[in-house]
Amino acid sequence: MSRYLIQFAYDGGSFSGYQIQPNALTVQEELEKKLSILAQRKIEVVGSSRTDAGVHASQQFAHFDCPVPIQKDWVYRLNRMLPHALAVISIEQVADDFHARFDALSRTYHYWIVRKKTPLRRHDTYWFEAPLDLEAMNAACQILFQYIDFECFSKVKTDVFTFDCTIQKAIWTEEGDFLKFTIQANRFLRGMVRAIVGTLLEVGEGKLKPEDLHQIIQSKDRNQAGRAVPAHGLHLVEVKYK
Amino acid sequence: MSRYLIQFAYDGGSFSGYQIQPNALTVQEELEKKLSILAQRKIEVVGSSRTDAGVHASQQFAHFDCPVPIQKDWVYRLNRMLPHALAVISIEQVADDFHARFDALSRTYHYWIVRKKTPLRRHDTYWFEAPLDLEAMNAACQILFQYIDFECFSKVKTDVFTFDCTIQKAIWTEEGDFLKFTIQANRFLRGMVRAIVGTLLEVGEGKLKPEDLHQIIQSKDRNQAGRAVPAHGLHLVEVKYK
Repeated sequence: MSRYLIQFAYDGGSFSGYQIQPNALTVQEELEKKLSILAQRKIEVVGSSRTDAGVHASQQFAHFDCPVPIQKDWVYRLNRMLPHALAVISIEQVADDFHARFDALSRTYHYWIVRKKTPLRRHDTYWFEAPLDLEAMNAACQILFQYIDFECFSKVKTDVFTFDCTIQKAIWTEEGDFLKFTIQANRFLRGMVRAIVGTLLEVGEGKLKPEDLHQIIQSKDRNQAGRAVPAHGLHLVEVKYK
Repeated sequence: MSRYLIQFAYDGGSFSGYQIQPNALTVQEELEKKLSILAQRKIEVVGSSRTDAGVHASQQFAHFDCPVPIQKDWVYRLNRMLPHALAVISIEQVADDFHARFDALSRTYHYWIVRKKTPLRRHDTYWFEAPLDLEAMNAACQILFQYIDFECFSKVKTDVFTFDCTIQKAIWTEEGDFLKFTIQANRFLRGMVRAIVGTLLEVGEGKLKPEDLHQIIQSKDRNQAGRAVPAHGLHLVEVKYK
């Protein structure tokens, strides 16, 4: 029995999220089904991050154990067996105790906003035209680094033992007609990035001041933070391992 | 009565082409419907180019006559009335005898190929992994400039009076994981770009030699040229006027 790390990418709009659930098309189930066909036995995968319904990934990982040796052509064959919305990038052997979720040092997400209606980018960016003060939004980002408990940005229904996250990067940049929010942390809570983006947009619109972030974070109350922005602007873009 | 030029963009995957037809969602019909609501009378638009079902446009134009003055907020309102797949960029007044189709000096199309499976670009690029000799494909492009009758690349069912086109630009470029074909001409025949791309791909795969283009074009026979590539990789990107 050897352990393997599979790297893949997907259009979240075509799936009910990463994690398997009954009566819904999920990334995990699609991967397991097709890997099981190739291995001719049941394969279970453990993902690095459980992205919500609608959230995209350009770099996501999962590990799995397989008693038969992986053939060189599996990436090629998987890409032709899987739906167009899910692509396998690579499969490589890892240590037997490697864990895709627990060994990940950090995850990086991008949230894309498009400033004018752009038909071909409507599936992967959030169309938002209101004027925004980017400087104020980046000033608010600086406050995120001063805290580790982010319960205020977590979905209320959650099964985590701690709300502590170490945010390593949080910055807004302008790229032509697009605004890109980059956030990197050791871990994220459920709905956290979309709640942070929603709150930062309120700062950008002048409805909140950057320093209001202190009170919001200290409240540990989801109702104090801004609304969650739509899932389709969110992309998991990097997972770092040792 | 004044004449206006409307500039717009669309995701061709959501429409059965530009031109109105019964029992199908078309770009022209959507535009006319929403403009008629704002003008409170029937508005008819005349497009610069009749793109086929599935073909995208980042810059397309149409003219229309309207007896009531266009309000400044029409672009804003149209974008909120039209489906997400269709965006209005601008509306400006033009001369009363301006014609969106006949006054266009040239149209430019891009055809995008992606070299590896890329879920988020599957709607607007053609996934094609086979090795390609780009140099041979560009050598074949040079031959296009030596001809004006392109009947060999035209759909057989067509109502045009002449197959003459002046090709002003035709070149393949590599951009990361993508190949982009740029072609500019005064006019294009039905299915022409997709037939040219299909033929050039056969050159790239070594199934045809660049100089075989001479015989194909001279034959004036659609069966001599390559297959038509899928519509979803094709984008109308520029229409030039005086």
